[in-house]
Amino acid sequence: MRRAKKQPWEAPDSVGIVKTRFLTFAEPPDTFVFESSDRLGPVTLAYETYGELDETRSNAVLITHAFTGDAHAAGWHSVHDRKPGWWDGAIGPGKAFDTDRYFVICANVIGGCSGSTGPESIDPERGRPFGMRFPPVSIRDMVAAQRRLIDALGIERLLAVAGGSMGGMQALQWAVDFPERIAACIPIATCARASAQIIALNAVGRQAIYADPFWNEGDYYGSTAPAAGLAVARMVGHITYMSDESMRNRFGRRLQTKEGRSAGSGADYEVESYLHYRGTTFPRRFDANCYLYMSKAIDNFDLAAGCSSLADAFGPVRAGFLVLSFTSDWLYPSYHSREIVRAFLARGIDVTYRDMESVYGHDAFLVETGRLAEAIDEFLGRVRRSGARRTRTASSNGAQLNGEITL
Amino acid sequence: MRRAKKQPWEAPDSVGIVKTRFLTFAEPPDTFVFESSDRLGPVTLAYETYGELDETRSNAVLITHAFTGDAHAAGWHSVHDRKPGWWDGAIGPGKAFDTDRYFVICANVIGGCSGSTGPESIDPERGRPFGMRFPPVSIRDMVAAQRRLIDALGIERLLAVAGGSMGGMQALQWAVDFPERIAACIPIATCARASAQIIALNAVGRQAIYADPFWNEGDYYGSTAPAAGLAVARMVGHITYMSDESMRNRFGRRLQTKEGRSAGSGADYEVESYLHYRGTTFPRRFDANCYLYMSKAIDNFDLAAGCSSLADAFGPVRAGFLVLSFTSDWLYPSYHSREIVRAFLARGIDVTYRDMESVYGHDAFLVETGRLAEAIDEFLGRVRRSGARRTRTASSNGAQLNGEITL
Repeated sequence: MRRAKKQPWEAPDSVGIVKTRFLTFAEPPDTFVFESSDRLGPVTLAYETYGELDETRSNAVLITHAFTGDAHAAGWHSVHDRKPGWWDGAIGPGKAFDTDRYFVICANVIGGCSGSTGPESIDPERGRPFGMRFPPVSIRDMVAAQRRLIDALGIERLLAVAGGSMGGMQALQWAVDFPERIAACIPIATCARASAQIIALNAVGRQAIYADPFWNEGDYYGSTAPAAGLAVARMVGHITYMSDESMRNRFGRRLQTKEGRSAGSGADYEVESYLHYRGTTFPRRFDANCYLYMSKAIDNFDLAAGCSSLADAFGPVRAGFLVLSFTSDWLYPSYHSREIVRAFLARGIDVTYRDMESVYGHDAFLVETGRLAEAIDEFLGRVRRSGARRTRTASSNGAQLNGEITL
Repeated sequence: MRRAKKQPWEAPDSVGIVKTRFLTFAEPPDTFVFESSDRLGPVTLAYETYGELDETRSNAVLITHAFTGDAHAAGWHSVHDRKPGWWDGAIGPGKAFDTDRYFVICANVIGGCSGSTGPESIDPERGRPFGMRFPPVSIRDMVAAQRRLIDALGIERLLAVAGGSMGGMQALQWAVDFPERIAACIPIATCARASAQIIALNAVGRQAIYADPFWNEGDYYGSTAPAAGLAVARMVGHITYMSDESMRNRFGRRLQTKEGRSAGSGADYEVESYLHYRGTTFPRRFDANCYLYMSKAIDNFDLAAGCSSLADAFGPVRAGFLVLSFTSDWLYPSYHSREIVRAFLARGIDVTYRDMESVYGHDAFLVETGRLAEAIDEFLGRVRRSGARRTRTASSNGAQLNGEITL
């Protein structure tokens, strides 16, 4: 008998078929206290794990997701899936986060819409979805909720927290808020505080949602969702994730239809048709109110708020860092990463920095997984070999910097 | 008697109080034939002029406006105006386009919504506004209509055509379509063909308008206009006209209100409040259908379409050129200008190119008027001194390039 062609979930570097699990904080305190002082309970986090936790529980890596991400970072939910988890290229046997060696965890953030408690969830007091009554969510809240999950999994100390974009913000926040609980931190294509341009672009997405009459101040559950507004928001997002060059390479000026060139509502150029498709399919998997909450969490992220400097904010930090940025990322340009690295150096914190040449813009952290693997594999191997808990003193001479970068 | 403080329209470098005039193509043919072969008539162009036409009618400079511009390029319409024309910093006595020496003309483009015939105009056949029944408008159509105006003003040959952004596209099109009728051409912060990124950003604006239920397929005249959709489109536009750095310098992370940090619909950061204001006031002066038409004209602009190369497209060109770009312009990055300059050089066309260091992004062509003046004044003076009609042969050695630029 001839063997059938291997399916992608059967590939040796795939984590295969996986399942999302759910943790509801049930033990006291069963309520979650937000940075805003709002209280909520019970709170559920959706999460997935890949690989095995070792006997000393020292090989756990927490992956933190970006704006519209979820717990499904790798593998396939079923044989009917058309695509794997959002960072499948980076998670699996032999990949950047090698599941033969590491126990990889990814959870949907609190405030999310993919299984974790968020604006779509039922407000127990009112018996219907929270909508805009959900408490404001901060990056710090996301991290505090993840810490509860890590507790529940019986992990005292994470080998690393790693994530790109909003995921990188969470990684940095982990290093600041729970310094004793992470050995290493990998913030990718991110920043220590959202720029005016990031805020402005998020504001456009929000206004597009507000402008949709179906948004109805956030009370649309059970009726028509503000899909058109959310689609416009998503289109803006997609443009900011690409680069001028990657869009030129991928789409150029190719027309979608031969007629083309109308002033009407048809999508004439391939790039429009692509964006329109990505925009209009997005509301099937993402909630408009959640979009508002996530975008505000990003805008409000400012690690240096209330501190005299960013270096000051990094005072409690004990982890070692691998900071990665991409040359064509105009949403989170490399200067953001350099700012972080400079602050680490000022405090003698162990940091390796690489500004990777790429044409893929902000998306590079999702696309350039082969090159991420090189940097991350080497870094995590080094962290793991260094074994016992580092102290800042021991690592203060460990800074490795890409020679081409002027900090 | 003490003299009152000088008002801005009384300043020695102001063109003062000006008036928009209107030209309706009345002589046969009184119809305008679009590039699409659609015919329309009568057609009106709104225009303004500043300075005096000299006796030899050889000092006329045509200014071509950008996406949302109009005929009111300089001066004040009344003493009640809160701001002058859109390029007042560049037009006036002693300015880049020195009205003591040049007769400056600016017309609202055909398809526009500021006095020229466009989608808002009454379709004589139906007795109500065209809306989306207006013929598709191209950059070539805009230039063809301007040529009719120049004819009517009795000007055989323009000293120069100058404009930024979509205005630069028109300037280039003039040089190609009417080579014998312009001595010089100043395309600023523009391109020879719209990039995928430009098309994508325009597509977002269009989708925001389409998503507004008041748009109603363009039939909204006499009822509620799609102001919310147009406001979102304008917000996207504003972001693309600035740069990351200029937004950081101007707004940073400053909060608008002390409460701040809500997940609700308030504008929390100054940059949001600014964009929101610019977005919501825009529909008072601009028509949503016109926005659709202008954006499509930009998307469809491709000087090299149907030619073997851009240099091939420049075959008919006789003018001398001053090409200007700005280092922080990410909507029309300098490589677009370099592409144009390379094509000119390949054909031995007289060209001066300057890539100006600026933090103002695409807006630099409106903001950096002092530095424009240096470059433009010198260039126009040289063109005028060279007097009689140049031939391409005579100017083939005239290329002056900014030494820092790698073409």
